[in-house]
Amino acid sequence: MKRRTAFFVSDRTGITAETLGLSLISQFEEVHFTQVTLPFVDSEDKAQEATKRINQAFEADGARPLIFATIIKQDIREILERSHAFYIDYFNTFIGQLEHELETPSTKAIGRIHGMRNTTVYNSRMDAVNFALNFDDGAKTSNYETAEIILLGVSRSGKTPTCLYLAMQFGIHAANYPITEEDLDNDGLPKFLMPHRQKLFGLTIEPERLQTIRQGRRPNSRYSELEQCKREVKAVMKLFHQENIPYLNSTNVSIEELSTKILVISGIERRIR
Amino acid sequence: MKRRTAFFVSDRTGITAETLGLSLISQFEEVHFTQVTLPFVDSEDKAQEATKRINQAFEADGARPLIFATIIKQDIREILERSHAFYIDYFNTFIGQLEHELETPSTKAIGRIHGMRNTTVYNSRMDAVNFALNFDDGAKTSNYETAEIILLGVSRSGKTPTCLYLAMQFGIHAANYPITEEDLDNDGLPKFLMPHRQKLFGLTIEPERLQTIRQGRRPNSRYSELEQCKREVKAVMKLFHQENIPYLNSTNVSIEELSTKILVISGIERRIR
Repeated sequence: MKRRTAFFVSDRTGITAETLGLSLISQFEEVHFTQVTLPFVDSEDKAQEATKRINQAFEADGARPLIFATIIKQDIREILERSHAFYIDYFNTFIGQLEHELETPSTKAIGRIHGMRNTTVYNSRMDAVNFALNFDDGAKTSNYETAEIILLGVSRSGKTPTCLYLAMQFGIHAANYPITEEDLDNDGLPKFLMPHRQKLFGLTIEPERLQTIRQGRRPNSRYSELEQCKREVKAVMKLFHQENIPYLNSTNVSIEELSTKILVISGIERRIR
Repeated sequence: MKRRTAFFVSDRTGITAETLGLSLISQFEEVHFTQVTLPFVDSEDKAQEATKRINQAFEADGARPLIFATIIKQDIREILERSHAFYIDYFNTFIGQLEHELETPSTKAIGRIHGMRNTTVYNSRMDAVNFALNFDDGAKTSNYETAEIILLGVSRSGKTPTCLYLAMQFGIHAANYPITEEDLDNDGLPKFLMPHRQKLFGLTIEPERLQTIRQGRRPNSRYSELEQCKREVKAVMKLFHQENIPYLNSTNVSIEELSTKILVISGIERRIR
């Protein structure tokens, strides 16, 4: 197997550089990549230090490392470009074209995207995170009118991380309520959910996967028996169908995919930074 | 002010396309951008539909929209390229260069980065999210040996969202403990934290900002008085200095910046996807 080192180099957090680089290297399954992030490379000294590490990887691997860089300042970029590496610079590739298209010079300010550029947007994301925590796992069953979406599903079907992602990434006020056996025995939706029907969204999961997750949490309990998982999943699916609640299967789907699909299906606009 | 519509178009979640596009357009403060994300554009029909929306924006704005696309399939890309827009295609720009550098064809598989490509990595991120919730706000003060980092600070100094971000983005096991007045009166670290000194990391905040946040939570209480906030922040700073605990000021710093700085300072490697 071929081996390369991939460096994600940034003058700020490195989160954009990682996203950029990972989306490209994930297209090369036949190469094994060692991943190194070098954030806060915001001075010539730090650029020299980064170059040293990159050149060391070149020596060790016997092949050019890849650099995925989001560096705004030209003097820092020029130092990195001199290292023994294959250099992809996202800003430098596109910013000139964009300046031309928009007939405006760019501000060349660093830390734009993952900083606190827009306080209002940032605060609303943090509010959404607090909301998700307050309305997690049925902790509050009143005030659901302040929620934009209410996820339903059996315990451990992926509701909590999905709500947190919706909040953190998109600033969405997402509540979640765990459908318990008691709810299922009562046949039909819990009363307090009825006025909020149009906000309900279901998550389901394959019983075998559910059992594995529950087993990690409460091993050898009734809760984590396969039969119990099957029974609950079957009953919750019946509820979703009866009540006409849209749902997704979380078994092999990441919280990123679940969140973005939920927004598409329910027609909620993303509030991006 | 100039106005443009920016489209983030993807065959999957659109999260990468948004990150790419936002990092570029945030460099043009003199242009007002209307932002539209079109995720799951994975068929020719959907590409035609997207093109229609893009062309409508062209008509409405009287200027070419920008498209930031992460589209793998060529037939879909070709449809989008025919719209009246300025088209930036991240994959198409760099994938050929990378194939050449790596002497390997790319797999051209969609949904690589935000899907559940690597189940082990994904599960460890989800474990970390559960960990952050279990060890949030001093909910558990035993078993701290399983934590990689323990954030300390007064109530509402930004500990919880930072822990959740560390978990969700980097798969780090982050606990947090709120330093209360009682702890501060006792002078010194709570006993159960002492064995974990090397994992402690402080967050501080400007008292005025703290007051605003607390005021939103419990208006007109002692908790949200400016004097009270000043007193707590002063005492916690004294504690950080006395105990030699590294700390950051969260006042104007985003959770992305806090998280990445904490990792740099404490020398913890990011576990990226």
